[in-house]
Amino acid sequence: MIAMLLRFVTTLGLLAVLGVVGFFLDTMLLNVFILLVSALGVFEVMRATGLSARRDLTLLALTGAMVIPLVGFSALATPMIYLIVFSYFLLLVKKYGKLRLIDCAMALLFGTVIPLSFACAIFLRDTHGAQAGGFYILLALTAAWASDTGAYFAGRFLGKHKLAPVVSPKKTIEGAVGGVAVCTGMMIWIGVGYQNMFGGQVNMIELAIIAPILSVIGMFGDLSASAIKREYGVKDFGNIMPGHGGVLDRFDSVLFTLPAVYLISTHLPLIVT
Amino acid sequence: MIAMLLRFVTTLGLLAVLGVVGFFLDTMLLNVFILLVSALGVFEVMRATGLSARRDLTLLALTGAMVIPLVGFSALATPMIYLIVFSYFLLLVKKYGKLRLIDCAMALLFGTVIPLSFACAIFLRDTHGAQAGGFYILLALTAAWASDTGAYFAGRFLGKHKLAPVVSPKKTIEGAVGGVAVCTGMMIWIGVGYQNMFGGQVNMIELAIIAPILSVIGMFGDLSASAIKREYGVKDFGNIMPGHGGVLDRFDSVLFTLPAVYLISTHLPLIVT
Repeated sequence: MIAMLLRFVTTLGLLAVLGVVGFFLDTMLLNVFILLVSALGVFEVMRATGLSARRDLTLLALTGAMVIPLVGFSALATPMIYLIVFSYFLLLVKKYGKLRLIDCAMALLFGTVIPLSFACAIFLRDTHGAQAGGFYILLALTAAWASDTGAYFAGRFLGKHKLAPVVSPKKTIEGAVGGVAVCTGMMIWIGVGYQNMFGGQVNMIELAIIAPILSVIGMFGDLSASAIKREYGVKDFGNIMPGHGGVLDRFDSVLFTLPAVYLISTHLPLIVT
Repeated sequence: MIAMLLRFVTTLGLLAVLGVVGFFLDTMLLNVFILLVSALGVFEVMRATGLSARRDLTLLALTGAMVIPLVGFSALATPMIYLIVFSYFLLLVKKYGKLRLIDCAMALLFGTVIPLSFACAIFLRDTHGAQAGGFYILLALTAAWASDTGAYFAGRFLGKHKLAPVVSPKKTIEGAVGGVAVCTGMMIWIGVGYQNMFGGQVNMIELAIIAPILSVIGMFGDLSASAIKREYGVKDFGNIMPGHGGVLDRFDSVLFTLPAVYLISTHLPLIVT
């Protein structure tokens, strides 16, 4: 009961923070928020996989996690990424015999993929402006969290058949179906709301088609994070959000839905104006 | 003696192939060539690190190595890269308990970084056209190979002080200086030649400044490859080019100079027209 209450209060806190970031979406606040989430996420996964024992790699990965959201879409982005990759090889040569290639590979992977995924929120705003960009970001968050919440309740009341017993034993097929349904409904509701509020034309047929796809992508992100946690024998990536766990426990699905929404927005735009 | 001759003949063969690719630079031949070099390179490093024992990862990495040069700069590029990264996580979840995250990380790293680096030759052509693009590609190859050759001869006759005794015991500081000098001279000569042949204006001062930097980057690429080979106890990455070794033994420096030249071409263009 207390755990439930704690989780609820944390959720309110998270939503409040996201609300403030959303209100100032047009400012550098978004970049700073993404920077913090990226750095925390990278640190969490390095701690879970034991990589954080290496100071040099941790420092390098955290630098990447902070630089990438700061440079965003600017002309500095590609040179910075080159410099970051280059630095890992510099370290590999300099610490030869004391640093394994696999540790470099893991740090480089986490230290670039996580910030690049989160930075898609910045790319969305910078490509489409705060209004349409905000709409797309909201879709990515909904795909992650409405699916999750829908699946939790549908699974609790209807769940019978296990979805992925080895990786995530609590998930059921009935829950997944419920999650997809709730997510699709929520996303269509957001689409209608966007049309009414801002007068932009949203392609509702496309939205209805991609909503379930994004929902499945979000659930799969959750499964991927579970597989990593299980392999390294950790229950949660952290405890910065009491009741939820770490940043990665809450944002694991978002890591997969944000880039997917960004690609949809550039290749098959939902907003017709 | 026979080894020297073999090496010389292979060099001629490689130059002939590059000549043909250069002549048809404006066609898909470049993409196909980069596809082959990427696939071979990815396979070689996976074999050297023992990863090629995993059929699934090898298949996935080779797919990436072939898809990335094919899509090049087209609208398909980012969705394809997303799909490739996504596929690794699909495999990780599907083969849970039988596939380690570190193996996935290594395969994903090699299977994207190597083709993306090589694909910079395609990006150079698609951004600047065959003429200026060809000039930039030639600079990247020169930075890699003129440095290497210059360092070999300068080191042989003047070499006294070791450069990196642990990682690559044969390299000397005198050799490195000679390599940088030869590379800088060659690149300036290419710049003058380009001006005379095509009438384009090349910023010679900038060229003289970046030539030694690119030369050092190329040598560092060589050192990085040596560090990886030593860690895994292999002498060469392969033997497809008798006397030189594998594709990666010959193109290791190019992997570092090509992206550097691409970034220079987009941020500080050498050709003023």
